[in-house]
Amino acid sequence: MTDAQHCLDLLREIKDVSFATVDEKGLPQIRIIDVMLVDEGSLYFCTSRGKDFHAQLLRNPHVAIVGMTRDWKMVRLAGVAKKIEDDPHGWIDRIFDENPSMNDVYPKDSRYVLDPFRIDSGCAELFDLGVSPIFRQTFSLGGAPAHVQGFTITESCISCGKCARNCPQQCIVPSKPFEIQQEHCLHCGLCYENCPVSAIKRRS
Amino acid sequence: MTDAQHCLDLLREIKDVSFATVDEKGLPQIRIIDVMLVDEGSLYFCTSRGKDFHAQLLRNPHVAIVGMTRDWKMVRLAGVAKKIEDDPHGWIDRIFDENPSMNDVYPKDSRYVLDPFRIDSGCAELFDLGVSPIFRQTFSLGGAPAHVQGFTITESCISCGKCARNCPQQCIVPSKPFEIQQEHCLHCGLCYENCPVSAIKRRS
Repeated sequence: MTDAQHCLDLLREIKDVSFATVDEKGLPQIRIIDVMLVDEGSLYFCTSRGKDFHAQLLRNPHVAIVGMTRDWKMVRLAGVAKKIEDDPHGWIDRIFDENPSMNDVYPKDSRYVLDPFRIDSGCAELFDLGVSPIFRQTFSLGGAPAHVQGFTITESCISCGKCARNCPQQCIVPSKPFEIQQEHCLHCGLCYENCPVSAIKRRS
Repeated sequence: MTDAQHCLDLLREIKDVSFATVDEKGLPQIRIIDVMLVDEGSLYFCTSRGKDFHAQLLRNPHVAIVGMTRDWKMVRLAGVAKKIEDDPHGWIDRIFDENPSMNDVYPKDSRYVLDPFRIDSGCAELFDLGVSPIFRQTFSLGGAPAHVQGFTITESCISCGKCARNCPQQCIVPSKPFEIQQEHCLHCGLCYENCPVSAIKRRS
């Protein structure tokens, strides 16, 4: 079954994933971070107190994460990263137990310059580019609203079929109104641009 | 030789890299995008006009990119993405010529729902985690200022050696004042936290 937990498990499997934050100037920042642990409904990572990333998280805890599996599944998670205040050394020890190569970078007690963080709410997305047509699905983690993107065909549709003929993934079904199979949609916007009666609207 | 161009070439080699942007709410957004072309001093990608990513780029063109080679070199580029206004169809054709698998996703003329973008100025960083001690270097692309991070030891240093003993990468050299080998520094901040006379300052 695919759900938010499956997305977390895939991110742990990928392990080296990209984390985006917003810095003090409002600019995007990015780096590769290891997904250290995944529990029921939570993802854990750590970073050292000297890094810009750490300062950015304390100022603005919103993060966006992406990773890709070897078979072209893109997994995204957007959420809030909370510094773990309860027994941080215990969490760092658990992280090092389960990720022993961390000892090569932070030997002995130097590990405690790392602070542990948890993400337990946000929006997850699985976007499988390894199948044809492509397949995508979004999930809520911890009750956060799932982010809606793409397009929808309204009642103004005259069923001319121009959208379906133009769709690069052939994911628009004849009907009254025509219907976009959202799970196969690239969000490219070609249907939206080609509708002669402007019956197609953005969902967001 | 390692320079900004080498970073661009590595990003093209990795190809599937992560792009971070800031959305209209000031939140970080992220996705995996193909590096389509790399020329002398420029990196090219494309995205379709229907995507949130496209709208974000037009509102706020600042992007941060990261990818990792198979041998653990993390490559970053932060810069400004400019939509190419001069002969966009010609650029899309060149992109599809050099990346023929794009035809599977956007067959025939559907390719022209994609707009081409160029990045020709910014700050690049190479961070090699596959060597010990780690190795990092930043470079300017197109004359943009290189981003400075990490720490420096000031003249207040009393040469007690506590920073060097605590450094997880053993990259602090005894001297008056002691000196951090910036190219081997993790930016973890353990020296900064342990200096008994607060002689260590952030560089940024």
